[in-house]
Amino acid sequence: MFSPRFDAAGLVTVVVTDAEDGMLLMVAHMNAQALALTLETGIAHYWSRSRNALWKKGETSGNFQHVVEMRTDCDQDALWLRVKVLGHDATCHTGRRSCFYRTVGLVDGKGTLVDDGSKPLFDAEVTYRKPV
Amino acid sequence: MFSPRFDAAGLVTVVVTDAEDGMLLMVAHMNAQALALTLETGIAHYWSRSRNALWKKGETSGNFQHVVEMRTDCDQDALWLRVKVLGHDATCHTGRRSCFYRTVGLVDGKGTLVDDGSKPLFDAEVTYRKPV
Repeated sequence: MFSPRFDAAGLVTVVVTDAEDGMLLMVAHMNAQALALTLETGIAHYWSRSRNALWKKGETSGNFQHVVEMRTDCDQDALWLRVKVLGHDATCHTGRRSCFYRTVGLVDGKGTLVDDGSKPLFDAEVTYRKPV
Repeated sequence: MFSPRFDAAGLVTVVVTDAEDGMLLMVAHMNAQALALTLETGIAHYWSRSRNALWKKGETSGNFQHVVEMRTDCDQDALWLRVKVLGHDATCHTGRRSCFYRTVGLVDGKGTLVDDGSKPLFDAEVTYRKPV
């Protein structure tokens, strides 16, 4: 039986990968409503913790996520969505394909980030500009 | 600058994939100590929320995770480890390669799980048996 274990905030962690090549695109969260909408419509819905609101991914950018497969892990506290990204095939709010565009290394004992050079696939500044 | 955003419990979410074929193996959590140990040793350490303890993955089963690459996402509240699994090449406590061995579907409007048929790579009952 599918009985996802929502945390104290009513959320479950969601890992999102590209169904075609397996690239890790993002990590997000769903509440029960977002999960139900995702299962019913086949389009990924999340709960935005920063905006404290239901979030139909792609509503502004057009980069909706069509769910090819949903999986859950052994203790059902995480979900895995394998998706096909529509629009620009970009998932990150910076316009990049993946949110995970930086590697972490140790330099002189300190954690350091290195950008992998991936380029924005759309102009995030224009897309997310707020109407004045 | 690498400055992971630990949550109120002092934890950051970690997505773990196989460095070779990209298979999603598990989702876990790290506190600052587990992260530091992982960076220093190159072997994945986590924080076990169920045992409330530092967790060197593989200590009982031998399935240690050698970190090939660490990445972080745009807002640094999630980490991605690309690993080579030692021992039985199994990550799940059930003995399977991946914790995500079940797909989720809708049957008559209800979420339903289907096992993907992956077999245990070690005998979890023997490996995790508590000494009497």
